[in-house]
Amino acid sequence: MSIQRIESGPRMSQAVIHNRIVYLAGQVADDGTGPDVALQAASVLKAIDTLLALALSDKSHLLSATVYLTNMADFGAMNSAWDAWVDPKATPARATVVSTELAGSEYKIEISVIAAQR
Amino acid sequence: MSIQRIESGPRMSQAVIHNRIVYLAGQVADDGTGPDVALQAASVLKAIDTLLALALSDKSHLLSATVYLTNMADFGAMNSAWDAWVDPKATPARATVVSTELAGSEYKIEISVIAAQR
Amino acid sequence: MSIQRIESGPRMSQAVIHNRIVYLAGQVADDGTGPDVALQAASVLKAIDTLLALALSDKSHLLSATVYLTNMADFGAMNSAWDAWVDPKATPARATVVSTELAGSEYKIEISVIAAQR
Repeated sequence: MSIQRIESGPRMSQAVIHNRIVYLAGQVADDGTGPDVALQAASVLKAIDTLLALALSDKSHLLSATVYLTNMADFGAMNSAWDAWVDPKATPARATVVSTELAGSEYKIEISVIAAQR
Repeated sequence: MSIQRIESGPRMSQAVIHNRIVYLAGQVADDGTGPDVALQAASVLKAIDTLLALALSDKSHLLSATVYLTNMADFGAMNSAWDAWVDPKATPARATVVSTELAGSEYKIEISVIAAQR
Repeated sequence: MSIQRIESGPRMSQAVIHNRIVYLAGQVADDGTGPDVALQAASVLKAIDTLLALALSDKSHLLSATVYLTNMADFGAMNSAWDAWVDPKATPARATVVSTELAGSEYKIEISVIAAQR
């Protein structure tokens, strides 16, 4: 059974597909998004949309999501962006936890997801 | 291949099933469990039992578990509850890490699991 | 569909295989590795190699990896060890987050992976 990789570099791939399951790398906000966590969340979710589309999936096929916040005080703002984005009839299993730092000091949120292909 | 969701709301589902794999949302203790981490762990594990049963799985079909503690000082108490619960002949791959905060300030433990259906 | 477990004890298994997918327990450095995070990372990655081999997989079949660091200041040292190890043509989806403590106070890094069997 083959493994397909999307936006694959020598350190990591942004998406890996195997047996019709899509594993995304942890996504952070685009450069220049700024410090607002709701804007960062929206940027992260847009990046997830883009990668899922490349992987022949979409947000209505999410299976699980892990949301990492640097501060749980951002839980409400993250949820506002999440609720505006997620397909309310096709929501994943989700865990939201704290990572006190992320891979860049500007980041306040990172999200990893597993999805099924369409 | 269809996706089935259990206790599904507009934000998240408590369980998602696809290709006979069950992804549970991160589980926390029931309201009123109180601050004792061993009691919280037992409540979390009971919630996992309930959801796995609804998903036609059970704790002997666990594949992986991620345990989030707010304080690694609770590792021993968590393990006592875990060891009393888990099927000793059918244990999952497990990682235990710290999330300094969880989605409610009263929570000291959250567990996410992936399981196979029976 | 059967579940196979490797280095399985009454608390957890180091690897669980189901439907040709391998779930590894979070791996930490061998005893005596010492405090250097690059050496700890190399030890963790060697443990992953060993378990994947037992599970009829290898690092070129990684699907996803979650790297937990106790301090994001160790990101560069972890990446140096990672880059020297990973198959640059077959990289997984990866998330790197902080767990302020791990299951032993000597540990600075823990890695969980999901892989496909060969």
